[in-house]
Amino acid sequence: MMEKETSRVEAFSDGVFAIALTLLILGIKVPDLDNFASSVKLYHALVNMWPSYFAFILSFTAVLIMWINHHGFFKYLKKINSAFLFTNGFLLLTVTFINYPTAVLAKYFNTQAFNIASAFYCGSMVLVSVAYNLLWFSSAFKRKLVKDEITDVLIIKIRNAYWFGFFIYLSAFIISFFLPFIGLSICISLWIFWTFLDYENKRKTRIKVKL
Amino acid sequence: MMEKETSRVEAFSDGVFAIALTLLILGIKVPDLDNFASSVKLYHALVNMWPSYFAFILSFTAVLIMWINHHGFFKYLKKINSAFLFTNGFLLLTVTFINYPTAVLAKYFNTQAFNIASAFYCGSMVLVSVAYNLLWFSSAFKRKLVKDEITDVLIIKIRNAYWFGFFIYLSAFIISFFLPFIGLSICISLWIFWTFLDYENKRKTRIKVKL
Amino acid sequence: MMEKETSRVEAFSDGVFAIALTLLILGIKVPDLDNFASSVKLYHALVNMWPSYFAFILSFTAVLIMWINHHGFFKYLKKINSAFLFTNGFLLLTVTFINYPTAVLAKYFNTQAFNIASAFYCGSMVLVSVAYNLLWFSSAFKRKLVKDEITDVLIIKIRNAYWFGFFIYLSAFIISFFLPFIGLSICISLWIFWTFLDYENKRKTRIKVKL
Amino acid sequence: MMEKETSRVEAFSDGVFAIALTLLILGIKVPDLDNFASSVKLYHALVNMWPSYFAFILSFTAVLIMWINHHGFFKYLKKINSAFLFTNGFLLLTVTFINYPTAVLAKYFNTQAFNIASAFYCGSMVLVSVAYNLLWFSSAFKRKLVKDEITDVLIIKIRNAYWFGFFIYLSAFIISFFLPFIGLSICISLWIFWTFLDYENKRKTRIKVKL
Repeated sequence: MMEKETSRVEAFSDGVFAIALTLLILGIKVPDLDNFASSVKLYHALVNMWPSYFAFILSFTAVLIMWINHHGFFKYLKKINSAFLFTNGFLLLTVTFINYPTAVLAKYFNTQAFNIASAFYCGSMVLVSVAYNLLWFSSAFKRKLVKDEITDVLIIKIRNAYWFGFFIYLSAFIISFFLPFIGLSICISLWIFWTFLDYENKRKTRIKVKL
Repeated sequence: MMEKETSRVEAFSDGVFAIALTLLILGIKVPDLDNFASSVKLYHALVNMWPSYFAFILSFTAVLIMWINHHGFFKYLKKINSAFLFTNGFLLLTVTFINYPTAVLAKYFNTQAFNIASAFYCGSMVLVSVAYNLLWFSSAFKRKLVKDEITDVLIIKIRNAYWFGFFIYLSAFIISFFLPFIGLSICISLWIFWTFLDYENKRKTRIKVKL
Repeated sequence: MMEKETSRVEAFSDGVFAIALTLLILGIKVPDLDNFASSVKLYHALVNMWPSYFAFILSFTAVLIMWINHHGFFKYLKKINSAFLFTNGFLLLTVTFINYPTAVLAKYFNTQAFNIASAFYCGSMVLVSVAYNLLWFSSAFKRKLVKDEITDVLIIKIRNAYWFGFFIYLSAFIISFFLPFIGLSICISLWIFWTFLDYENKRKTRIKVKL
Repeated sequence: MMEKETSRVEAFSDGVFAIALTLLILGIKVPDLDNFASSVKLYHALVNMWPSYFAFILSFTAVLIMWINHHGFFKYLKKINSAFLFTNGFLLLTVTFINYPTAVLAKYFNTQAFNIASAFYCGSMVLVSVAYNLLWFSSAFKRKLVKDEITDVLIIKIRNAYWFGFFIYLSAFIISFFLPFIGLSICISLWIFWTFLDYENKRKTRIKVKL
């Protein structure tokens, strides 16, 4: 039954990830030209929307990677409890929230307020990062909800990765106020880190092979 | 086959909960500054959006807790019938509706009309509460759709909790007209109640242990 | 494998039904009062939104009943083919479309253009009805995709019900141009018909009992 | 376990397809007449929305066919890896994006800027086509993730179909700048091609029959 519980929470979370991802497209507004719109005008209007396209691709990729990591982490769990349900809920809240700073970033990318928009975006990533750390704490701390076959080494590796992420996002947030492009670039470069974060339980397998 | 029926209605309900939850983010509007937006202006605009953030977090948590309770209740059911399908549909309608009073609350939080916005919000919670009571009535009354292993004690406990919720929300609704902050605070404090409402079929287990 | 195919199409359809249902809430717009909004003004603004609430409840219930009927019909199928996939797709298109006439109805309920809004709404129901008839035709005609245990009597009963629905919606559509309230009322009264449409394969069961 | 992995990615993808499909309806805006709207005015306003209806049906059908093809392709896979996860993510991004050019097409169908709107739409289809080719490359190239029973003939047939699609969409994109109706018509006529693209592993079956 516990297996089934975990599946259901995972399916619900998957649903929220999928919806949060797809709603991002609503952040790109159709350009509103006057009635005698010419080809040249629409062409330029669509080209000038590039900050919206950029922000869409940015957040779509970010949420997709979050989903993959969420899934990687869920594989460790043998059961769930109420505390986990709420930290997972907080994670879904932060993931859903990303829609908003994305829309703000798209609108103020080309303006003098770019640094605030960038800091707001990176700040939201800090929140997501806090949520992942809480998720780890509510489930992997003292191995509360973790499957027996998951090694301590792996649990600590994941914890360190989540902490590392938190500090880098925090730096990106602070840097954004002064050097918004650098701040945003740090956020993006962390994608590569999350993408290659390996949730495989390798060590255990090696031991098994030895035996 | 009945098992499968229950699963499908639960999956559909989960979908509606997940979507209703995620759509809440669309209630936060991007601030519309003039073209020469400065950092200071955007900063203040984003800070002044706090009622929107507050309303988002409020309703996200509320719907999440409703989902957890919905799931807790579904575990009791051995089958479903048409009457249950419609009371469940009414519940989904009230849960979906919450999006609207949330947006109203966000917009009129800082205005003279805060009491109406707060009463509207609490009033919607009364409706959700009515829906939960109908859900109980259509399934647990005379144990129509309830699994055999669920004790009468538990069924009555849940009924009392749902009735209690209804009266508290009703009070919050009435109080909101005069003291909106108090009304809203009552709504929020009920979260704690729902969070700790225990759907576990404990007594039975104890009896089993005795035998 | 065919079982699995049917499940996947059903799950996809369920998803579209759930989203179409939940998106209806976006049709209710937050009243836009001036900055010094008073309690009285917001109260009246919210009360004056009743056509929006009405249209929301109307279409939420309609789509919910459509979902229940869709599910009832799917239980007959032993497999699916390409033609069925496309008629089912057309059904999902019409169900999704209902969002739009609902928003039109909400906006023009209280205006001189109510008859057009009502006819547009009933006209969309005609389309949904056509889609259900096509669904029947693509799967139950000559028992192409129907399970062996489903009796011919039941298949014909469902076909007649779908045809009946089509003609009543068509009448409601035509009547709406002249007597919009009557047209809309006919649409609503058909809910009761769909709700009590019985997809159970009873006759077979009786025979079984006899034997 | 790999089976389960594939299922989960497929379920997530299905979710994104279903949401992207349903969100299309939000692209049709309710006509905004003055307060003394007459029946005649609303009738003409609704009729004049035909480019919106057309664009909705166009993209709904397109995304539906993409979903069917996505599903057809997934049946070949015995497992998934990280590279596949990202090309599949890119495919979901392009599918979600279609919402935007659809809204642009609906708004500028009747204007002088129709050729740009049409080229933008066809250009998005080129991107979708690139995503399908990458999906093929990341999984079927050197049979990396393909089930053993899938014949080489079938794999090459699918590759050729995807390449063919890419070049036709590219032509439609270029032609759209000068002859927008022709460009759009080519996009639509490709539907028929995708609809009849057969993912069945026939040859194998024949061999089985021989033996």
